[in-house]
Amino acid sequence: MDLIAIVDTMFARVNMGDYAVDELKQCPGFESTFLIKRVTVPGFKDLAVECKRLIEFYNAKIALALGMPGKAEIDQVCAHEASQGIMMAQLLSNTHILEVFVHENEAQTDADLITLVENRVRKHALNAYWMLYEPKQLLTRAGQGVRQGFDDAGPAQT
Amino acid sequence: MDLIAIVDTMFARVNMGDYAVDELKQCPGFESTFLIKRVTVPGFKDLAVECKRLIEFYNAKIALALGMPGKAEIDQVCAHEASQGIMMAQLLSNTHILEVFVHENEAQTDADLITLVENRVRKHALNAYWMLYEPKQLLTRAGQGVRQGFDDAGPAQT
Amino acid sequence: MDLIAIVDTMFARVNMGDYAVDELKQCPGFESTFLIKRVTVPGFKDLAVECKRLIEFYNAKIALALGMPGKAEIDQVCAHEASQGIMMAQLLSNTHILEVFVHENEAQTDADLITLVENRVRKHALNAYWMLYEPKQLLTRAGQGVRQGFDDAGPAQT
Amino acid sequence: MDLIAIVDTMFARVNMGDYAVDELKQCPGFESTFLIKRVTVPGFKDLAVECKRLIEFYNAKIALALGMPGKAEIDQVCAHEASQGIMMAQLLSNTHILEVFVHENEAQTDADLITLVENRVRKHALNAYWMLYEPKQLLTRAGQGVRQGFDDAGPAQT
Amino acid sequence: MDLIAIVDTMFARVNMGDYAVDELKQCPGFESTFLIKRVTVPGFKDLAVECKRLIEFYNAKIALALGMPGKAEIDQVCAHEASQGIMMAQLLSNTHILEVFVHENEAQTDADLITLVENRVRKHALNAYWMLYEPKQLLTRAGQGVRQGFDDAGPAQT
Repeated sequence: MDLIAIVDTMFARVNMGDYAVDELKQCPGFESTFLIKRVTVPGFKDLAVECKRLIEFYNAKIALALGMPGKAEIDQVCAHEASQGIMMAQLLSNTHILEVFVHENEAQTDADLITLVENRVRKHALNAYWMLYEPKQLLTRAGQGVRQGFDDAGPAQT
Repeated sequence: MDLIAIVDTMFARVNMGDYAVDELKQCPGFESTFLIKRVTVPGFKDLAVECKRLIEFYNAKIALALGMPGKAEIDQVCAHEASQGIMMAQLLSNTHILEVFVHENEAQTDADLITLVENRVRKHALNAYWMLYEPKQLLTRAGQGVRQGFDDAGPAQT
Repeated sequence: MDLIAIVDTMFARVNMGDYAVDELKQCPGFESTFLIKRVTVPGFKDLAVECKRLIEFYNAKIALALGMPGKAEIDQVCAHEASQGIMMAQLLSNTHILEVFVHENEAQTDADLITLVENRVRKHALNAYWMLYEPKQLLTRAGQGVRQGFDDAGPAQT
Repeated sequence: MDLIAIVDTMFARVNMGDYAVDELKQCPGFESTFLIKRVTVPGFKDLAVECKRLIEFYNAKIALALGMPGKAEIDQVCAHEASQGIMMAQLLSNTHILEVFVHENEAQTDADLITLVENRVRKHALNAYWMLYEPKQLLTRAGQGVRQGFDDAGPAQT
Repeated sequence: MDLIAIVDTMFARVNMGDYAVDELKQCPGFESTFLIKRVTVPGFKDLAVECKRLIEFYNAKIALALGMPGKAEIDQVCAHEASQGIMMAQLLSNTHILEVFVHENEAQTDADLITLVENRVRKHALNAYWMLYEPKQLLTRAGQGVRQGFDDAGPAQT
């Protein structure tokens, strides 16, 4: 049985992990091919090492790192550090960790923020599933301007 | 017996380590389940390797890295480097190191600075305890907009 | 038989991988000296670890990492993180990974974007081939102001 | 017999290594408990690997990395890269390397520059000695706003 | 017999490797104490891993990484990434790699650019030789404000 790791934060203002769990439970093979392990950490700088721990100590095959950088300028620097950590965690563990960040200032209202989070998290949860079990889903979408959270940009038109 | 590492600096203008020690001494299991080891280094760029040394040479299960970036512009670059080091130390040791930085310019007065430091350090010391012994405390707060040092932002309202 | 890895993204608005595959298929030794393995990942931050996986798990001798940073300011930070990841992946695996990024804002129109992508991808695919099998092609072009995607800058004139 | 490493540069405009050597020679235990090994490299980007070589090939217990970033804007980027290297060298070797940088633009005149260098280098040489042999000296100064090169900021006043 | 590695690029507008080869051929011990291995890569982001490969697969004792960042703003970010890679390559291989970058915008004319390149490359080639065989040449120049490419800044005057 494979394990898919989901790590989110207390800092985020939306329960990001719940959407990821819900999406993956609807994928074929849940509880027969793969299980889910979810952990919550304080903030997004704690995501990288938690994902790496779940990969290396629990043998997770892929991880979702869910975070929500705040509006302050310092939050952007922290988000950069958090991202660099997730990158390094992947390279040291030879395992994909999908970084799913929703910057709080991407949405104008709380309602928009919730909608954006749900869309982005669900799409990346599905991406994680595809990467493990249906890589052709990604291959057939190569260069198609696919986005998560907002509408697809679509392919360049000749 | 587990070990929790606390590292702070001579550079900071508030004794950050004392608050962390005091908070952890009030947690269940002090001196029965876990002990504390505290070290002081010159400045915040020395925190990362000291935490990693305490993890790898003393078998610390988690570490608190306590620092106070100054007001100068160069201090922001140094804080970024210190943070990247703490991130790398975590990933190389597969152990959480909670970065607890209070930027001196987050407070207007010395009194506010002390209040801010105490609040943030105590909350992160408790987070460290929860991560080791009560991870459900974090899980139930997922996406709740939890902050340390200032009031919680709270969850987005539908 | 050697393996050359090609990794591109769903995020890009042009099918970058197709050009790389097509160029390499025209090189001497295709299917006798080397084969191609192509994988598509969600976005450019996923390129580094996928290249490293193909190098370390499939023994790829060189990799092409094909990505297209978008126009937003945040995309520039992400591109920087993606590039740092590709750099680290190379150093940890002791293998060249040619970073082939086309920033969407390098072209004014979709038609120009497609032309730019094709040119840059094909030239770097040929570079990858040369690095493996004809290093003298590179040596004889040392200091010649060679570019990919746009016209060569040419050597400084005395 | 322990070894303390001192690395400085030809680039700096003050002989930083001489001050470090002089300070350490006055510490208790010189030539009975510890010896000094000093190396000069071209510029500050060469400090990190030289310190790491002295730690790993000569078993140095701690290192001082002495550098002087110039006034140009590009020098600030280089200083950042040099600092990141010193951070990484520490984490890979599990050994403290005290970064002692004096930015040329911290002083208005050559005379001030020399005074600043001497003060900062001597204080950090003493810090290195304390870290190895008298860690309580640091612990009793926790949160005291200690500075090197300029006057101490002092602790926040209640 | 030792090996000194020289790596340059097709991207540069001056044949940087030729100057390095020429300078080293004039050093004592060429072909009796040390040999040269030169490789050309596409651009400066490819320098780090090539140097590391020459160190680890060919046992090079030191390397020169020769690159020329272009004038565009994006080139500065790329140069930063290339430099970070060279730093990491050194730390992972415990071997010096002298970064010899000439930014195209350091010179006003092609003729000045060529002069600058020749001076900087030759001086760093000599530095590499000194670091291996005559470290006292560097020690006696500690803190002397030595520069490569332009005139020495000289030591601070009391």
